[in-house]
Amino acid sequence: MADRPIITLLTDFGWGDGYIGAMKGVILQINPQCRIVDLAHEIAPHDVMGAALVLGQAYPFFPSGTIHVAVVDPGVGGARRPLVLETEGYRFVGPDNGCFTFVLKREEGVQAFELTEEQFRLPRVSHTFHGRDIFAPAAAHLSAGVPPAAMGPPVEATDLTFLAIPDPVAEGGALLGEVIGVDSFGNLVTNISREALGQFAPGGVIEIEIQGERIRGLKSSYEEGKGGEIVALWGSAGFLEISLREQSLHQERGWGRGVDVRIRRKK
Amino acid sequence: MADRPIITLLTDFGWGDGYIGAMKGVILQINPQCRIVDLAHEIAPHDVMGAALVLGQAYPFFPSGTIHVAVVDPGVGGARRPLVLETEGYRFVGPDNGCFTFVLKREEGVQAFELTEEQFRLPRVSHTFHGRDIFAPAAAHLSAGVPPAAMGPPVEATDLTFLAIPDPVAEGGALLGEVIGVDSFGNLVTNISREALGQFAPGGVIEIEIQGERIRGLKSSYEEGKGGEIVALWGSAGFLEISLREQSLHQERGWGRGVDVRIRRKK
Amino acid sequence: MADRPIITLLTDFGWGDGYIGAMKGVILQINPQCRIVDLAHEIAPHDVMGAALVLGQAYPFFPSGTIHVAVVDPGVGGARRPLVLETEGYRFVGPDNGCFTFVLKREEGVQAFELTEEQFRLPRVSHTFHGRDIFAPAAAHLSAGVPPAAMGPPVEATDLTFLAIPDPVAEGGALLGEVIGVDSFGNLVTNISREALGQFAPGGVIEIEIQGERIRGLKSSYEEGKGGEIVALWGSAGFLEISLREQSLHQERGWGRGVDVRIRRKK
Repeated sequence: MADRPIITLLTDFGWGDGYIGAMKGVILQINPQCRIVDLAHEIAPHDVMGAALVLGQAYPFFPSGTIHVAVVDPGVGGARRPLVLETEGYRFVGPDNGCFTFVLKREEGVQAFELTEEQFRLPRVSHTFHGRDIFAPAAAHLSAGVPPAAMGPPVEATDLTFLAIPDPVAEGGALLGEVIGVDSFGNLVTNISREALGQFAPGGVIEIEIQGERIRGLKSSYEEGKGGEIVALWGSAGFLEISLREQSLHQERGWGRGVDVRIRRKK
Repeated sequence: MADRPIITLLTDFGWGDGYIGAMKGVILQINPQCRIVDLAHEIAPHDVMGAALVLGQAYPFFPSGTIHVAVVDPGVGGARRPLVLETEGYRFVGPDNGCFTFVLKREEGVQAFELTEEQFRLPRVSHTFHGRDIFAPAAAHLSAGVPPAAMGPPVEATDLTFLAIPDPVAEGGALLGEVIGVDSFGNLVTNISREALGQFAPGGVIEIEIQGERIRGLKSSYEEGKGGEIVALWGSAGFLEISLREQSLHQERGWGRGVDVRIRRKK
Repeated sequence: MADRPIITLLTDFGWGDGYIGAMKGVILQINPQCRIVDLAHEIAPHDVMGAALVLGQAYPFFPSGTIHVAVVDPGVGGARRPLVLETEGYRFVGPDNGCFTFVLKREEGVQAFELTEEQFRLPRVSHTFHGRDIFAPAAAHLSAGVPPAAMGPPVEATDLTFLAIPDPVAEGGALLGEVIGVDSFGNLVTNISREALGQFAPGGVIEIEIQGERIRGLKSSYEEGKGGEIVALWGSAGFLEISLREQSLHQERGWGRGVDVRIRRKK
């Protein structure tokens, strides 16, 4: 793969903007051998948490050697650092604003560097579009063999920005979690992992409460739900999801990120 | 092309989800030589008919050897079969829910196999995302040379799921068809083909009625329509289309799939 | 790069249509070695000005030799000419309707040819989808080595269609410009360039008025704005932009293309 390296792009740009195109041009001009993969675009504008979730869901499926670029960057032009991260299998390029939270949670021995070396940026850097002027060039130079450590000073992993992803907590005999994401089908993704629920209610029957509605037990697929029924099941990223069969629960009820989810054990 | 096989993706996933990205990662991890082409995404959620139409419109233009993956899959995790189809020029991967209806109508001698062999799936298969866990791996293994017949037992072509695409019918001196699709410009695509109209009114002048509005004759291009005029013309897929020049007829009038279209011969 | 030429696509097609996919298929069938890059899609339907702006912003970042295809084509099937343009670094393919306005403004010695030669089109050309039937095949044949001059008769550069991009004008001691574009973040892009403002108010403090609101001075980044504050700053394409920090100014106020922007010098 080294001869045709893969660079993925994740942004909150619209397809109708010229921004995605400009980033691709910059990459291909620096390293014409690159293969650019559109991982995700049109993340909700400035939604760093959404970017972190989507990146965390998708990046581990890529082959070793892939370079992932994430540009959801409300603080562009301000004090937040531009970063390159190096893990065992991947490199990540983007702003130090929390969009790598799930990468940092999962990977061990991550090395981070601030992108300060001007030779690996475009000659003229704007204050509003570092995706084009700093991150795309950095990814292209990485793909051409420049080591991350050549791009700027190291940053302590403990010094990197993390999003506060709430962990579910046991409270009054219940496990209290919350919705942390909504997909384009209107499915609600919670912060309750298989592990967390396994510890709280090993093998037992559970009841889930969300906005006053009670859901008894988990389905194993959307298909098992009746029309109009709210169901809970394990989503593809390993978190509990709440859904309405073939409809958008998000649109039908208006529930989204931050809504409480309470789980109780049933005899 | 065999050294850099083409795999196209058609899904109802949003660009802001991680789902498209995860599928691409899976494919590239199994066969890093693949070229992935985004054929279509953001089909209306669960709209199998929409997927079938879009696939039917686009797939015949691809070079022989292309592998087409279609994931619009409301029944994921349920009883519907995961399939690979083999035609003279292409392979198709996706659920047996009707999304290959136009492929099956057009192609002869299609061979179908159910994707049951676990070695060609991800090690852990979720109940909610077979695009990532079954269809993407199958496509990647096909591209690497695994024959369809190695992936599971054959399925009789007569046993495959077809969508009921209504054919236009002659009724009381008129040809009665209907709208089967709407594109992003708001043009209405009907089920009336050149052949069907040619049989009904060979060479004659026609009048088209839709929702009480009458359209006399066909235009040869959108350009011929006046502003605000509803026009009928042959669409690029060979079906009669009803349009409003430079506006969305779908949005302006609210007409969509299922609306009747009646054609009469005029002296 | 000659062995794997780059073709970019810019269209007003939706991702959920089959149109983008059909164009890609046509290109790959004619020249399977092509690398297709999605530059932009989902430009507002029929918005030639939007296409011109997005293309102008992105194309100069691509490597020399890139072929850019632009299909925002409300006049398809009518009298407007299908074109190929040749500049020092690039070739451009699309309708002669103004979508190359910024290319023609920037590049010198552009050569233009009308795409009339039938051998470089699909065998059957529809009246509604020249993206698939004329422009995609032309780009693919160019990428395979056919020279632009072989595709049809030359067109005088002075005879090409330009959009009337208003230049800012000095009027009563003020510089009067206007909004010419809106991006997906709701930022308003004006027609006031660094050069134009530099001539009007060299080095001085300015006040900007838009829809009765006054903005004093320019920020250097979005970050400097307070929540809810309307700010002006230099956008990444070198034009003055008006923004609302982390919000869509376009949505919040309803301001869009054509809105006046007045600049005065302050002591």
